[in-house]
Amino acid sequence: MELLRLGAVGEERPYVRAADGTVYDLTSVTRDTGGDIDGTFLASDGIARARAALEAGSLPAADVEGLRIGAPIAKPSAVVCIGQNYAAHAAESGAQPPKEPIVFFKHPNTVVGPYDEVLVPRGSARTDWEVELAVVIGKTARYLSSDEEALACIAGYAVSNDVSERAFQLEVSGGQWSKGKCCETFNPLGPVLVPADEVEDPQALDLKSWVNGEPRQASNTRDMIFSVATLVRDLSQYMTLDPGDIVNTGTPEGVALSGRFPYLAPGDTVECEIAGLGRQKQTLGKG
Amino acid sequence: MELLRLGAVGEERPYVRAADGTVYDLTSVTRDTGGDIDGTFLASDGIARARAALEAGSLPAADVEGLRIGAPIAKPSAVVCIGQNYAAHAAESGAQPPKEPIVFFKHPNTVVGPYDEVLVPRGSARTDWEVELAVVIGKTARYLSSDEEALACIAGYAVSNDVSERAFQLEVSGGQWSKGKCCETFNPLGPVLVPADEVEDPQALDLKSWVNGEPRQASNTRDMIFSVATLVRDLSQYMTLDPGDIVNTGTPEGVALSGRFPYLAPGDTVECEIAGLGRQKQTLGKG
Repeated sequence: MELLRLGAVGEERPYVRAADGTVYDLTSVTRDTGGDIDGTFLASDGIARARAALEAGSLPAADVEGLRIGAPIAKPSAVVCIGQNYAAHAAESGAQPPKEPIVFFKHPNTVVGPYDEVLVPRGSARTDWEVELAVVIGKTARYLSSDEEALACIAGYAVSNDVSERAFQLEVSGGQWSKGKCCETFNPLGPVLVPADEVEDPQALDLKSWVNGEPRQASNTRDMIFSVATLVRDLSQYMTLDPGDIVNTGTPEGVALSGRFPYLAPGDTVECEIAGLGRQKQTLGKG
Repeated sequence: MELLRLGAVGEERPYVRAADGTVYDLTSVTRDTGGDIDGTFLASDGIARARAALEAGSLPAADVEGLRIGAPIAKPSAVVCIGQNYAAHAAESGAQPPKEPIVFFKHPNTVVGPYDEVLVPRGSARTDWEVELAVVIGKTARYLSSDEEALACIAGYAVSNDVSERAFQLEVSGGQWSKGKCCETFNPLGPVLVPADEVEDPQALDLKSWVNGEPRQASNTRDMIFSVATLVRDLSQYMTLDPGDIVNTGTPEGVALSGRFPYLAPGDTVECEIAGLGRQKQTLGKG
């Protein structure tokens, strides 16, 4: 089962896709919590209720031909990002592997659909891609004491592109990265939210990216320095994570910052894929 | 006129306080935009509508005796913070004055009422205070080209305490400050939101803090390195600011990080005040 949101920007409606590919309207399940796939829905066991309704055959099949794919979760209250969580990417960025998770934020309004246009910001010469495993929080995470508790707070997983502007991030930032992470459209998410209990091992997922069809990143989440469970547990010592929050868990090597590839320009395409979570594709435009 | 939100946590309701101190129920004005003082209310000229209703005498006076004071704005979509924006504070932090605004984020769930308990996080030995002028955004700010445009995007101002844990911020962070800025209860806001057009000059406001009644910070917003207008204009080149977003504009010298004062412990009190925007007071508890 995959959860997704389809429709024009700001008018997305909730759906599930069954294993056979059929898409069903999820509105009857989300209605009790405000009508969308969001933190309130996830915190109220929405995924279990969606699955029960799907298995009971009580959801109407939907004709979704031609509908835009939105981000699979509405209005995250926070987008928490982890820096340099793959050793080879830390190295290509000129840094040592971190001893503790490095945390920064993106403005939540950066989240867009997986096929939406990504805008090269005005004045940008160094717009870069970053395929990442996004963790979507399903239960409040506060002072968790074990990896098991941490994994129990995760609703599911999605593909994320943590788009970055390296001059904004590193040259005019006083060293605080968020300035190069928050430009509009800088966080394509999706196409789907896969429930956590349908991902056998979040530390064994191939993740890849391409620019104009040429391979860029190709790694596996087993190469993370800090595992998904460690990250959520660690974050919960420093902040309370709310249902619906997104954690971008870091990107592997193969970005333009390495010097091996050109930065992005209007007209380029970026694709990001994680095994089992789908593929997204954006065309670059002008901000 | 001051806007405020009164009631138990999560049950705050909107009010205005007139110049003579009388408090009026604002529900009749907020009803059209969802019932609260939030980004939707501000973006729909809510402040002008509140003022018109107040001047027309159409708001009912309210008995607010004993009601808790909440943060004056509900559910900000982002809390954007500016670092080292007062030269003397940069110096006491061991840094040079920045050449460009330094930007980081707090998790929006850190925002609490101005008299709510602030929790010293578990494992903390270096919890610190920071009185700051908070800017509340009223109109979408995107690629603004002048200070006038920037000021027109500001709905109003409030007192903010950008509570910080210095070990989390500086020692276990890999250099990214947000890790020490996001602990629960770390952003008392209020008591009131003062409309921008009732603040004669945002660069001429005394701001002060006290710990256990003893003075700590005492400065004036004229000592900001980057003015409020410059900050909003600059931020809008790097992100889109939404109505309801909060910008904490930096703190002056006189925090514990300077080495001149002890850090906070449970039982301590912190007070923060900005001339014309009111005073807030928190007692420290245990996280």
